[in-house]
Amino acid sequence: MTKASRIAVDAMGGDEGIAVMLAGVAHARRRFPGMEFFLVGDETAIRQGLENHPNLSAASEIVHAPEVVGGDEKPSQALRRAKTTSMGIAIDLVKQGRAGAAVSSGNTGALMSMAKLSLRTMPGIDRPALAALLPTLGETDCVMLDLGANTECDTRNLVQFAVMGAAYARTALDLEQPRVALLNIGTEELKGTDTVRDAAAQLRGAAHLPLDFKGFIEGDRLSRGDIDVIVCDGFSGNIALKTAEGTARFVADLLRRAFQSSTRSKIGFLISKPATELLRHHLDPNNHNGAVFLGLNGLVVKSHGGANELGVQNAIAVAAKMVRDDLTRRIIEDLGNFEARAA
Amino acid sequence: MTKASRIAVDAMGGDEGIAVMLAGVAHARRRFPGMEFFLVGDETAIRQGLENHPNLSAASEIVHAPEVVGGDEKPSQALRRAKTTSMGIAIDLVKQGRAGAAVSSGNTGALMSMAKLSLRTMPGIDRPALAALLPTLGETDCVMLDLGANTECDTRNLVQFAVMGAAYARTALDLEQPRVALLNIGTEELKGTDTVRDAAAQLRGAAHLPLDFKGFIEGDRLSRGDIDVIVCDGFSGNIALKTAEGTARFVADLLRRAFQSSTRSKIGFLISKPATELLRHHLDPNNHNGAVFLGLNGLVVKSHGGANELGVQNAIAVAAKMVRDDLTRRIIEDLGNFEARAA
Repeated sequence: MTKASRIAVDAMGGDEGIAVMLAGVAHARRRFPGMEFFLVGDETAIRQGLENHPNLSAASEIVHAPEVVGGDEKPSQALRRAKTTSMGIAIDLVKQGRAGAAVSSGNTGALMSMAKLSLRTMPGIDRPALAALLPTLGETDCVMLDLGANTECDTRNLVQFAVMGAAYARTALDLEQPRVALLNIGTEELKGTDTVRDAAAQLRGAAHLPLDFKGFIEGDRLSRGDIDVIVCDGFSGNIALKTAEGTARFVADLLRRAFQSSTRSKIGFLISKPATELLRHHLDPNNHNGAVFLGLNGLVVKSHGGANELGVQNAIAVAAKMVRDDLTRRIIEDLGNFEARAA
Repeated sequence: MTKASRIAVDAMGGDEGIAVMLAGVAHARRRFPGMEFFLVGDETAIRQGLENHPNLSAASEIVHAPEVVGGDEKPSQALRRAKTTSMGIAIDLVKQGRAGAAVSSGNTGALMSMAKLSLRTMPGIDRPALAALLPTLGETDCVMLDLGANTECDTRNLVQFAVMGAAYARTALDLEQPRVALLNIGTEELKGTDTVRDAAAQLRGAAHLPLDFKGFIEGDRLSRGDIDVIVCDGFSGNIALKTAEGTARFVADLLRRAFQSSTRSKIGFLISKPATELLRHHLDPNNHNGAVFLGLNGLVVKSHGGANELGVQNAIAVAAKMVRDDLTRRIIEDLGNFEARAA
């Protein structure tokens, strides 16, 4: 067991409490039997929680952290307490090379700030990006980035996001040659801002990279399943992601109202419940949990604050795959290849 | 009947043909009995079509246009043929003051280019915006703008969009004091780009205007029904709109798959069909048809290319309400008030 195949888990972050975090890690441990864990947080509480998970206990080391980052705490404030919080200590284990990745369900802004300050960006990378998995009608999820780490992006940022996102898709989705597209307001070459058009021109010339550049994608095709990596600035990416979440909930709410509108439809609902459960399952964010900060000298995974056991398990699995495939090195290589050809 | 209460209809635009356009106008005519129409296009075809609609015939004047703008035609190319196409002639009737508004289901890019060139922007307006109605969980639709007329916007553009959007909501949604918010990636004052934050600061100071500024709105709350006017640049607005459309279709596709997954769920589906029909009705774009170009010296409404009779009727209704309320004058007044206070 090398140091790099350990994952540092912030056991305290998240709304669901330590028991859910530990149960999720224990599930993941069964999927990745070689993986070991640092469990960071209140030592007594973790020790107590581990009594239900002897298998996980055998594969874990507890690292005590006296403090926890609050869910509403300002990133600037959390940063000052980095060294004493479970989140900060988990990231520091990555920095020290003792863990291959850190996973937290805590405050997103604080996690991003701490990760940036502690791990720094990779050589040549101007800005890290936040990437997540989205459900599609296809066989696999798709990767979308940036989702809010950078409100404004230049051409170079977008091109780097494309390269990093493709490397991530190769690992997270097991695709050899992910199909990559830039989010835009039309698919014709003339559409959009100069930044997006210039990024497309550069990516069209990057035929030597392990990605298949498909040009532009519009918002209405994000979930069709024919593109694996959707690249955008953090402003429009965040808006697209949240609009998709909100619309899915909107349609589900309308459906619920419709089913409750008459006795007949209530009966129909009961009969077709397995079908609507299937829909609920497909849209459950726990099945697509695990957003990743790409472009740092170390891997950090953000799990939903409200993730359940399954969600935590999936976030740990995202981290485990990235550690297994040494994603940081892959990204550095791909970016090096891109820059070398471009020069 | 004053000249201004006539609507110029491009009878040729749209994928569904002249019969659907005329049937939609005839329906609208019943809702707005005082309204009269110019029907622009192939005279013989229109005359033939009107045989089924004697009431509309009595309230209409046919204006012959020898040509039609193609659905895939480039705006620059269409512009050169403006004077001989049904779309261009309909807009020209507005310019001449003979019609209060023009409605077309044709090529959006061509319509926008022709409208801008022919009608010009209002005094003090830098850029027109494209506004549309979106379904919500609330009692009324909401207005969203800009949806793609301007890929990049400055603070002044966003503030003008807010004022124009509020004036439009007062007319289209019959609200006295529409609740207005700027689309952003968070609701705290510090979130987003300088442009969005500066626009918020200016709108917070605009208490004398007939709108209720509510700060920022995130993508996941667009359809909650607690905001009436959502303001954004055309890039993120277009992406949000299309993402919402795509996600609604995605969820509907998943639901269809789920209902087809077993005999039991197929039976449940048949029983609850009135409920899913209700959902379909609520999401049907024909119920929210009629996007508007705001900020021009004249009113132009874009109807969906695939609109059915109901959709066309709704687009005409949007135009009729704007004509009835003299929206152009209202917007000029509101902008004047805003500028006067700001100065």
